[in-house]
Amino acid sequence: MDQRISLITLGVGDLARARRFYEQGLGWTPLSALDEVAFYQLPGLGFALFERKALELDAGRPIDGAFSGFAVAINERSRDAVDATIAQAVAAGGKVTKPAETAPWGGYSGYVADLDGHAWEVAWNPGCTIHPDGSTTFGGA
Amino acid sequence: MDQRISLITLGVGDLARARRFYEQGLGWTPLSALDEVAFYQLPGLGFALFERKALELDAGRPIDGAFSGFAVAINERSRDAVDATIAQAVAAGGKVTKPAETAPWGGYSGYVADLDGHAWEVAWNPGCTIHPDGSTTFGGA
Repeated sequence: MDQRISLITLGVGDLARARRFYEQGLGWTPLSALDEVAFYQLPGLGFALFERKALELDAGRPIDGAFSGFAVAINERSRDAVDATIAQAVAAGGKVTKPAETAPWGGYSGYVADLDGHAWEVAWNPGCTIHPDGSTTFGGA
Repeated sequence: MDQRISLITLGVGDLARARRFYEQGLGWTPLSALDEVAFYQLPGLGFALFERKALELDAGRPIDGAFSGFAVAINERSRDAVDATIAQAVAAGGKVTKPAETAPWGGYSGYVADLDGHAWEVAWNPGCTIHPDGSTTFGGA
């Protein structure tokens, strides 16, 4: 299996509510949207918000809404940008589960849960490069 | 907040076991590995396996290991490649939660859970383009 990921999907309880968080709240623009799902193009991969019931059917397993230990991260270009993004997410209804702080690995990071409880880390990491298109490489690549 | 994701993290109960699944089982190569975490560079973003206890501390919230309605997908270039990847994941200890089948949206897709229960969709989608570096764009982009 190739070492890559094509799409990240988050199950959501109310698609309209979730779209407001990501679109009006965070400023993202959908590529397309249907009754049960909305797609967003990110640099190098896709991102989808999918009604839980439809995702349960699609994945063949029940969703209980608990935290499975999955997190997505957005790396910012500065500490100030981390604070600004967390503030924006909170203004959109997100909840801070860990306030941003200096991390043992030399960066600065906090966590915000979206409206469905999905974990977003917002980080500044001096060891990663954020390219002009927004794609990110680690380890000096 | 920019419309992008920098890192995907999966909480795992036993890092050595999880690494065997992704490295020996699926053939991925780590960028770096420490006691509690292993990092992999994917096209455009990073991927991490992180010991649950360390992730709980990092994210400031408990992990109960249930399914939160999160899935990552790998899109393949053919139906046969979907079958081959699912077979490879099963051989590595993954469990099929939904056998691959023709999808209402015109593609072919199945789901496999990894050793910690994280949902992986394996799909062939005629509407997406897999670029030479493995990055994927949707909607004819």
